[in-house]
Amino acid sequence: MADPLDLEPEIRDGLQRVGTAPLASQLLKRGLRNVFIPRVAPVNPLHARMVGPAYTLRFIPMREDLANAASVATPANPQRAAIEQTPPGHVLVIAAGGELGSGCLGDILASRLLQRGVAGVLSDGAVRDGHELRELPLPIFCAALAAPPTFARINAVDAGRPIGCGGVPVFPGDIVVADDDGAIVIPRHLAAEVAHDGLEQDRLERFVRKRVDRGASIVGLYPPNEGAMAAYRRWVDAGEDDGALRDL
Amino acid sequence: MADPLDLEPEIRDGLQRVGTAPLASQLLKRGLRNVFIPRVAPVNPLHARMVGPAYTLRFIPMREDLANAASVATPANPQRAAIEQTPPGHVLVIAAGGELGSGCLGDILASRLLQRGVAGVLSDGAVRDGHELRELPLPIFCAALAAPPTFARINAVDAGRPIGCGGVPVFPGDIVVADDDGAIVIPRHLAAEVAHDGLEQDRLERFVRKRVDRGASIVGLYPPNEGAMAAYRRWVDAGEDDGALRDL
Amino acid sequence: MADPLDLEPEIRDGLQRVGTAPLASQLLKRGLRNVFIPRVAPVNPLHARMVGPAYTLRFIPMREDLANAASVATPANPQRAAIEQTPPGHVLVIAAGGELGSGCLGDILASRLLQRGVAGVLSDGAVRDGHELRELPLPIFCAALAAPPTFARINAVDAGRPIGCGGVPVFPGDIVVADDDGAIVIPRHLAAEVAHDGLEQDRLERFVRKRVDRGASIVGLYPPNEGAMAAYRRWVDAGEDDGALRDL
Amino acid sequence: MADPLDLEPEIRDGLQRVGTAPLASQLLKRGLRNVFIPRVAPVNPLHARMVGPAYTLRFIPMREDLANAASVATPANPQRAAIEQTPPGHVLVIAAGGELGSGCLGDILASRLLQRGVAGVLSDGAVRDGHELRELPLPIFCAALAAPPTFARINAVDAGRPIGCGGVPVFPGDIVVADDDGAIVIPRHLAAEVAHDGLEQDRLERFVRKRVDRGASIVGLYPPNEGAMAAYRRWVDAGEDDGALRDL
Amino acid sequence: MADPLDLEPEIRDGLQRVGTAPLASQLLKRGLRNVFIPRVAPVNPLHARMVGPAYTLRFIPMREDLANAASVATPANPQRAAIEQTPPGHVLVIAAGGELGSGCLGDILASRLLQRGVAGVLSDGAVRDGHELRELPLPIFCAALAAPPTFARINAVDAGRPIGCGGVPVFPGDIVVADDDGAIVIPRHLAAEVAHDGLEQDRLERFVRKRVDRGASIVGLYPPNEGAMAAYRRWVDAGEDDGALRDL
Amino acid sequence: MADPLDLEPEIRDGLQRVGTAPLASQLLKRGLRNVFIPRVAPVNPLHARMVGPAYTLRFIPMREDLANAASVATPANPQRAAIEQTPPGHVLVIAAGGELGSGCLGDILASRLLQRGVAGVLSDGAVRDGHELRELPLPIFCAALAAPPTFARINAVDAGRPIGCGGVPVFPGDIVVADDDGAIVIPRHLAAEVAHDGLEQDRLERFVRKRVDRGASIVGLYPPNEGAMAAYRRWVDAGEDDGALRDL
Repeated sequence: MADPLDLEPEIRDGLQRVGTAPLASQLLKRGLRNVFIPRVAPVNPLHARMVGPAYTLRFIPMREDLANAASVATPANPQRAAIEQTPPGHVLVIAAGGELGSGCLGDILASRLLQRGVAGVLSDGAVRDGHELRELPLPIFCAALAAPPTFARINAVDAGRPIGCGGVPVFPGDIVVADDDGAIVIPRHLAAEVAHDGLEQDRLERFVRKRVDRGASIVGLYPPNEGAMAAYRRWVDAGEDDGALRDL
Repeated sequence: MADPLDLEPEIRDGLQRVGTAPLASQLLKRGLRNVFIPRVAPVNPLHARMVGPAYTLRFIPMREDLANAASVATPANPQRAAIEQTPPGHVLVIAAGGELGSGCLGDILASRLLQRGVAGVLSDGAVRDGHELRELPLPIFCAALAAPPTFARINAVDAGRPIGCGGVPVFPGDIVVADDDGAIVIPRHLAAEVAHDGLEQDRLERFVRKRVDRGASIVGLYPPNEGAMAAYRRWVDAGEDDGALRDL
Repeated sequence: MADPLDLEPEIRDGLQRVGTAPLASQLLKRGLRNVFIPRVAPVNPLHARMVGPAYTLRFIPMREDLANAASVATPANPQRAAIEQTPPGHVLVIAAGGELGSGCLGDILASRLLQRGVAGVLSDGAVRDGHELRELPLPIFCAALAAPPTFARINAVDAGRPIGCGGVPVFPGDIVVADDDGAIVIPRHLAAEVAHDGLEQDRLERFVRKRVDRGASIVGLYPPNEGAMAAYRRWVDAGEDDGALRDL
Repeated sequence: MADPLDLEPEIRDGLQRVGTAPLASQLLKRGLRNVFIPRVAPVNPLHARMVGPAYTLRFIPMREDLANAASVATPANPQRAAIEQTPPGHVLVIAAGGELGSGCLGDILASRLLQRGVAGVLSDGAVRDGHELRELPLPIFCAALAAPPTFARINAVDAGRPIGCGGVPVFPGDIVVADDDGAIVIPRHLAAEVAHDGLEQDRLERFVRKRVDRGASIVGLYPPNEGAMAAYRRWVDAGEDDGALRDL
Repeated sequence: MADPLDLEPEIRDGLQRVGTAPLASQLLKRGLRNVFIPRVAPVNPLHARMVGPAYTLRFIPMREDLANAASVATPANPQRAAIEQTPPGHVLVIAAGGELGSGCLGDILASRLLQRGVAGVLSDGAVRDGHELRELPLPIFCAALAAPPTFARINAVDAGRPIGCGGVPVFPGDIVVADDDGAIVIPRHLAAEVAHDGLEQDRLERFVRKRVDRGASIVGLYPPNEGAMAAYRRWVDAGEDDGALRDL
Repeated sequence: MADPLDLEPEIRDGLQRVGTAPLASQLLKRGLRNVFIPRVAPVNPLHARMVGPAYTLRFIPMREDLANAASVATPANPQRAAIEQTPPGHVLVIAAGGELGSGCLGDILASRLLQRGVAGVLSDGAVRDGHELRELPLPIFCAALAAPPTFARINAVDAGRPIGCGGVPVFPGDIVVADDDGAIVIPRHLAAEVAHDGLEQDRLERFVRKRVDRGASIVGLYPPNEGAMAAYRRWVDAGEDDGALRDL
């Protein structure tokens, strides 16, 4: 039986083919404006795209008597536990409170996540060992690099609970999608429909873009009026969509 | 048997007679620098002092489909539950993520907390119904006033767990003390000793202040050298401390 | 014929008797979350409440060759023109881009607005001559006081156009209401209904607050379940609402 | 007859050969300090330089009932109109209020601007469809990428009026120049002289840089004393300036 | 012989009778825009005005091994030394780097400054012992109150050198004036003339304000045209200025 | 005799082979948390690593009458003097107060530093002439690029004194190390031991990383328990450390 938090292959596949821009448009159509995490970027530019259900990890500001090397020397430490417990295919989403003064993860932990089949990492804070992480084939979206160890500034307190990450609510199992435009969080129950409608929107925008690239005005075309929609449908029916325009 | 999180009367009494300034000094002597919550002030200037163990409540940013009037219409809502569950004598400490665009509490909930014997409220966000709260004999320390209801910006997710409030870690049962200089958080196990040493420091500073008010230089007096300490001890032994200097 | 932007007396009257908190709740019920201007406070604490349609004035950052005493020495200067053109009963809403380094208004211009019957001033920037403004019976809500003249930092460019003020959209004629909890902006077409529903909500909350003040739990009462609503309606029918609770 | 806002070819040519650094120095010599827009960078690193008169577009924060897909489905929408009306050779300068939570432009609109011969785009906010924009041969300087559609956070209100962009005043027709060091705004009437003097300054700095690269001290050389100026003039007269030093 | 940094009695007297608003206007007339320190307010509302030459004290962020009680236990500590060395009649201006997490001064040091005849304190950071400072007849302008001791966040490094305070340059001997509108810094060599011209501007504005209070339009009056200036001079000559208008 | 501020070759060599991440860990072990300068990055990605003692230069906000081209036309100007006086092998550390609106250094001054054998530049502000600096083989870590000349926003006041840079204390002679993860500041007297212990930590982490890359869990391995430490020592003794893992 499938893990109820696992992502159905067809939804994952759909989300992997749509950009965060059309997905954000679809969420806005459904009244959701607070789904985008600003100011995060991929550490490794060659691995700048990820899709997966959220496994959440929460930090709070450090207290000097609790924040030291000894505190992480036990599997019960929530940060270390999360490294071993984030399910394969999931995205580890870290609430670091926007802290840029220490890294909430380094290359050893990231390498372990990669080994375990985790889909990626998203943090509103910083990560460390940037030189090594840039070589690692794991998507990591974060706000900065920072040399100090995690407990220089923050302490992990729990995992698997709702968090705020970069001003956005994230519930365990929500679907995280990230690419060049940043990271968005899709409520679990909407994943299938926004994947579907996002793919459709993407195709329509390919059609529009082709017309614009050939000199058409956007008036009546974007957004499309009835005539433009009819032309679009003929274009689809004629199989003229090669899906490749945007990467010309 | 006493609630293990309850505060022994003599410690509470001591903390009520010491300012947050000497208490912060005592915590710094023990290596704790990250205990002060900046930018909060009392809503009612006549109730600008509170002491009590922390009962924590955590919010995350709102999501439009979850954040509405219906969501708070059940006792299971963590915000509403916290109002009825914060133990008497405790301080309700609210992690609002520094959100100033909606109030995490209004006059009805505050009035209920007062009725239930809660010691006060501390939030890194805003509260609403400022006009009414200014009349309520309950210490409320927060960062701003804001008209919109809680769920305009944030949603409660849990209570009784470690939180970050204004950049400071707060564990349930930590002792919150607040006065004109702001709010500090004392780790539970240090409350007795910092209360004791803070009272002593306060007495020494009364002695110093009296000398300074009479024209003494601070050289050798503040901090006191051996001679000044000997004079201080004679002053104490002679019963010259009337405890009243600071409020002349 | 009435000025289409003027405010009907009964709506103005209603809005003057409701706090910004219930009004913000009513706007949120209608899906409007971005209506509250944070970080503004009244300069004169005795004139901390205002209601009126918005007359908008817009500044942009200054350019040294345009921003000088000569530039304001003509009635065509948009700032000076706005002082003489804001209709009586309206609120002059100033988009200062959050600039706190110069005052967008001083006591002479404020005195003129008062003479002309303007309802008040709202700015996301600063005002100057604070000593004099604190004595003036005109509600002025702003973010700070600042000594330098307007053109030290900003230049007026136009009036009567849509603006952003403190992160909130303001269209000419929108209704501004401000009190202790801050300032909100009500779309013109919603003013009548939120005034009506806000008054009703206010009455219900007086009922709730009275019960809570007497020791009732909030469970089932706030928000009220069916039983509580029935009790409320009996309380209303019995004429027990004296409208005075909040100012006990 | 030439469009009065159009840029004379020789001025455009001059500005294209000078960096923003010497141009900013020339503006400062004329008393203008507030001409630099910080925190913007080119989306496409291969198209990181642009020159052109400003065509301005202004956004304000969104209001939920106005900010939706329907609002942009008309050529009268100021954002859509600006795409078709920005004159060829001009720079579309967008006042997005520094909003980083939605993109004020995507690849379809940018492609249309490119088709229409627009010189580039400058925004103090974000743009979306970063993956596609990085492939488009159009200079776009902005503060971030963001997935959500424009109206998730902001609404266009007018075009062709003075705006503040990134804290800098921009009047329609002002000349925008942007390169690696960021974007500056040159008042229209100063364009010719700062282009001329900037080219001269650039030549002088090439001379200085060559001397420094060969080991000369900056004392007496940078800024140049009389002797250094005489040597510079000999260098110019001897035709030793190959204009290429900086790209060695 | 007078201390060259001392303030001539007639200049001090003039500056004490002018508000910071006209003084800032006079500085702007002389091309100085960067003279106002925003976000500071007086701790004791009854002592909200000060004038005096600056004696500067500079802090940098703390380092744990240097920032402790022992570090201040010597008269050579720059903070402690500054308390005994700020000349009477001067303002102690503290560059705290805008740090709000610890107080750069408490009631004992402030009391010593008062005893020594210092004119006041200006800091872009916080002070502690707010309860006591509110009772002390010494003007203290700062950005916040904070309980922790100075060295929790910052360390004093030197005195009597140029500093930046709240984004404004302060050279030793510059004249600091502070009142309700905040604090400004007047270059030493301009003090006499801005005091003189500020008094004249103040008188003119009293004339204007009286006319406005009686119903005059600002057109032609503020700023005054030739006719208004003639009327002003007659008003002055007739001895109608009672100097009291602003405090009606 | 060696310059007492000079860096012993073996320490420099050690620090050049360790990343800032293990060095920051070693400083934290010694109780130092405030050693990391966030938000700075190398201008030239091919010269993104530097080690050297700090030579400090301090700016304050500009004042218009002092901040002009003439002010830098003398070798006594602290900025210009610092260019000729920073000792070879040292890092010029610039306190720009985080100012991003002007460049505290351009390509001519940077070229001179390179000629003089300076190890690099660190600033919490911006630099200008980014196009040229990207070609210069000199490590420059700063917060942004900016076109305007230095004195558009800031003025140099002194060199060789303690400064705050990006929130971190820097004393002349402290050792600056910067790489991909940012810049850290090592107190002079700790340089030898953190270099030594950092190299050891680095070796241990190479061992751990190799195990993790081969599929080992982090439990018991990171941090290592006794068994893991024994295995590590055998690995070291067996000469299996090729020092190359991280760049695989």
